[in-house]
Amino acid sequence: MRTLTVALSDQAYDIHIGSGVLDRTQLIVSHLPAERVAVVSNSVVAPLYLQRLVAPLRADGVRVTEIVLPDGERHKTWETLNSIFDALLADRCDRTTTVVALGGGVIGDLAGFAAATYQRGVPFIQVPTTLLAQVDSSVGGKTGINHPRGKNMIGAFWQPKVVVADTDVLTTLPDRELSAGMAEVIKYGLIRDLPFLQWLEANVERLMERDADALAYAIERSCANKAEVVAGDERETAKDNGRALLNLGHTFGHAIETGLGYGELLHGEAVAAGTVMAAELSRRLGWIDAADVARVRELLIRAKLPVVGARLGIDRYLDLMGHDKKVFAGRLRLVLLRQLGEATTLADVPVSEICAAIDTCCS
Amino acid sequence: MRTLTVALSDQAYDIHIGSGVLDRTQLIVSHLPAERVAVVSNSVVAPLYLQRLVAPLRADGVRVTEIVLPDGERHKTWETLNSIFDALLADRCDRTTTVVALGGGVIGDLAGFAAATYQRGVPFIQVPTTLLAQVDSSVGGKTGINHPRGKNMIGAFWQPKVVVADTDVLTTLPDRELSAGMAEVIKYGLIRDLPFLQWLEANVERLMERDADALAYAIERSCANKAEVVAGDERETAKDNGRALLNLGHTFGHAIETGLGYGELLHGEAVAAGTVMAAELSRRLGWIDAADVARVRELLIRAKLPVVGARLGIDRYLDLMGHDKKVFAGRLRLVLLRQLGEATTLADVPVSEICAAIDTCCS
Repeated sequence: MRTLTVALSDQAYDIHIGSGVLDRTQLIVSHLPAERVAVVSNSVVAPLYLQRLVAPLRADGVRVTEIVLPDGERHKTWETLNSIFDALLADRCDRTTTVVALGGGVIGDLAGFAAATYQRGVPFIQVPTTLLAQVDSSVGGKTGINHPRGKNMIGAFWQPKVVVADTDVLTTLPDRELSAGMAEVIKYGLIRDLPFLQWLEANVERLMERDADALAYAIERSCANKAEVVAGDERETAKDNGRALLNLGHTFGHAIETGLGYGELLHGEAVAAGTVMAAELSRRLGWIDAADVARVRELLIRAKLPVVGARLGIDRYLDLMGHDKKVFAGRLRLVLLRQLGEATTLADVPVSEICAAIDTCCS
Repeated sequence: MRTLTVALSDQAYDIHIGSGVLDRTQLIVSHLPAERVAVVSNSVVAPLYLQRLVAPLRADGVRVTEIVLPDGERHKTWETLNSIFDALLADRCDRTTTVVALGGGVIGDLAGFAAATYQRGVPFIQVPTTLLAQVDSSVGGKTGINHPRGKNMIGAFWQPKVVVADTDVLTTLPDRELSAGMAEVIKYGLIRDLPFLQWLEANVERLMERDADALAYAIERSCANKAEVVAGDERETAKDNGRALLNLGHTFGHAIETGLGYGELLHGEAVAAGTVMAAELSRRLGWIDAADVARVRELLIRAKLPVVGARLGIDRYLDLMGHDKKVFAGRLRLVLLRQLGEATTLADVPVSEICAAIDTCCS
């Protein structure tokens, strides 16, 4: 088991990563303020892992409320959130009840936002079951739901007490979701860790074959990179660089996701196509060269990710990007690659270049 | 103008109290990170004060989004909250937009929760226009909405950057709402400030006549009392005493409000009747005597507040009280009066005594 400590201003928490950590019940029990948890999962994950998680908890005397939601990003809505509140209230969960998220990023975001706002905040524990959730949602405390006008528009920062990331559960993860997680793993290499990018170029097939050791290494290194970025900018208030760097490919990616309608593409798939757009735009600004863009595309392709954007039309892209949270004081700020392994934020990118990059990457 | 500084762990903010402070635009402008505000008000307050607030802001170059909601506690719902999000998104408000609440407690709770969760949190400023909001919502950072199963069940702690409390706006406040605010003012005397309680007994009629000096004094002293309590227990995590003391009369009061349906009684009216129940229960436990209970009733009556509870039936009361947030680890904790001017929390009050107190105070 690898353990990474995420140090934040007012609290620190551990991420435990490895084979079989899901069965180490004490990792969870030791963080409960009362013997009362509400486990939030979805209809795909619950049949596989819910009882494995809760049976030992119950044997330990913990009272468990099970909340199973429908699966998918299109359910990351107020209605689904409210069904969590209904279940918590129906079971008379009080402020000492710990909300446990057992699932991917959608479950983490929903359960985390429920924990942040149920009775103005209850303790939260994450048991991420997708690669994406293990490398992305585990660190940073972002929770939230979608709004018809934009992704993650409503939410809160709410840190978990502990994260338990079992690499074994990735064996049941669909191929598409494994790839989607890889988009974020590759991102950490691109934005700030060239040696990790090189390691990924050497080991991407091991990861795709779900080699446990390779996965544990990639998850830990991804979380460590994210933790370093987040520690310097917990609430994404830095105007430049800081936490915004984690959004490489996300401004374009969110536009693709929203434009196609939530659920058409997985988040990581949209980010992959968006990352190619960001790389292409970086090339147009003279920061990286065509060989670098090809290298980015190649690695994403080996991770079985899409590298061509949805054909939404330029105007629709710009409109959707204007609603992105990375718009700062009304101006569009983009995360671009100064070189491979080093990202930077930039405002005032000429709209003509943005349009050209989108156009190039949509055909 | 009186200014009270509320000191909290990670930030401090000022409450400016007095005649005409609404017109001191700089009190607000000096706290804006960008020249962009969204003012949330309701259909009763907006015609009276919205333009007076926003015209000078616009003259100062601030871009203003006006959001006018329907009036009343029954609108403190997800649907209304979502209409705020819709308006913020339609006007492309970004993370540097400051949300300003212009109204009473409902507007403060809704606008504050919107500020806490819009794009995971934007700056918030309060301009409370009711006595209740000036003495209660101004301090403590509680925001939220109601759920069909309970009041304020969904919410967040979110502190304002500044509070501007103009005593002049209380001249247009309906009599019932002035009285409702008095319930909370009297509460501060009862729970921790006997000299203030005695001052209130000497000056309640001046307050009811809306004497500006008396009001400013009562608001400042109420806020100072609340600030001292909140500073010691920002997130209401203390098991005993601490912030829970502010809930004198509220466990019974919430049961009355919920049992009658939100909107039947004003919050302060329900709290007044609940305060008499808490006083009566304190008498039954031998802590205060019948003369003390009479003194509490008398002061509330002089403030034109109800002192008799709704006839919901004992079982319904107990059921509704069981859902109250002050239930700690499944046990009902009540706030009671050790003596006038000193409150304490108590678990394990015999149910028979609770029933008898409710019964006595409902007829």
